[in-house]
Amino acid sequence: MTSRDTAVAALRVDLGELAPSSDVFLGHCAALHLTFIEQLTEAMSNAPRVADKDALAHVVAIVLDRYRALAAELERLHLDKTDVMQPHLEGVEEFRRRTMGGEWYEQVASAHVTIGFLTDFWIALSVGLAGEPGDRVAQALATGDPHAPLHRIVERAIAANPKLSSRLALWCRRLVGDTMLQARSALVLHDDRSKDEAQIEPVFTELIAEHTRRMDRLGLTA
Amino acid sequence: MTSRDTAVAALRVDLGELAPSSDVFLGHCAALHLTFIEQLTEAMSNAPRVADKDALAHVVAIVLDRYRALAAELERLHLDKTDVMQPHLEGVEEFRRRTMGGEWYEQVASAHVTIGFLTDFWIALSVGLAGEPGDRVAQALATGDPHAPLHRIVERAIAANPKLSSRLALWCRRLVGDTMLQARSALVLHDDRSKDEAQIEPVFTELIAEHTRRMDRLGLTA
Repeated sequence: MTSRDTAVAALRVDLGELAPSSDVFLGHCAALHLTFIEQLTEAMSNAPRVADKDALAHVVAIVLDRYRALAAELERLHLDKTDVMQPHLEGVEEFRRRTMGGEWYEQVASAHVTIGFLTDFWIALSVGLAGEPGDRVAQALATGDPHAPLHRIVERAIAANPKLSSRLALWCRRLVGDTMLQARSALVLHDDRSKDEAQIEPVFTELIAEHTRRMDRLGLTA
Repeated sequence: MTSRDTAVAALRVDLGELAPSSDVFLGHCAALHLTFIEQLTEAMSNAPRVADKDALAHVVAIVLDRYRALAAELERLHLDKTDVMQPHLEGVEEFRRRTMGGEWYEQVASAHVTIGFLTDFWIALSVGLAGEPGDRVAQALATGDPHAPLHRIVERAIAANPKLSSRLALWCRRLVGDTMLQARSALVLHDDRSKDEAQIEPVFTELIAEHTRRMDRLGLTA
């Protein structure tokens, strides 16, 4: 296990009590993955170079595989996709609009930041799906590596135009707020808010630390 | 073999002399598949219902698999993706803009018409890739069935609002011109134009017949 796997595994212990029921978990997570696909193909459309389009196509394939694994899990549980996903569409679409970015490299940076943070989050939350479904979902969400190609694209955009660095750092910082709100919206909070916050805080601290490491690797201040 | 397979197999005999070299064939066809993916995810983004989004996600996965098979073929031939695809980007992007459609169901109809016609065309043209690469490409382009889900979506849109029928018929008729031009742009024409046309004509007649059958199944006049 890498240190990253350990951190994520540790997170899975903490969020269980705040996890929604399977149908809400899977519906929200699957709807979110549809928006990831939209976000990535938008960036792919706007990318001027074939090499970047090709790299993004591979990332789309990874996220599509994850989406299909989530859809398969819904089928396994005999849940209707429309019933469980539709209630989350508006929220995730609004999230996508807020975090999409204008320039194509901003769109790639957005995908890197939001998919990175939220995938870590949903893996942490999957402990709330008892037994095998939780394990299968955690495994599905860890399939493939979308982040190495996204990192390389952003890194190259910065290398080609070092002035982008401060703009992208600001942009990525702005994304964290919306991304954390999107994550929080998936949690089932209880009457005892201070107890909830005590559980949430260490998890979000770890997710932000992971985000900061992602930014560090790009030479960006988080 | 179904009658459709037979028709396509017959086409493969005819277009060989007009086929471009492997690098041009694969570069153009791969670039076109990137725009198919963009077209489909645009329609997916705009679809209001989860069931349609889900169906379109599956179609995206099919087209992505075909794209990756084309990219793999480029690697097998030690061709650089950027070198061979970049020259075709502008043309295929312009084609996508002209054929995209405004409303989401128009976008789905466009995907159905253009992907249908052009896939048949490229399978017919693949006889020009000598030996195994040609067989592999023909097989890759026939992988999966994107058209049944696209057909069902358009069919349902028409059933929900029968007035769409005449508008969609006009729209699809408009698409055929651009789509045929896109196909023709892939052919290597010779000095003897009348000989070229004699080879092209029966193939395009068959492609249009297939298009007409696709429209008939939707109850639309082609």
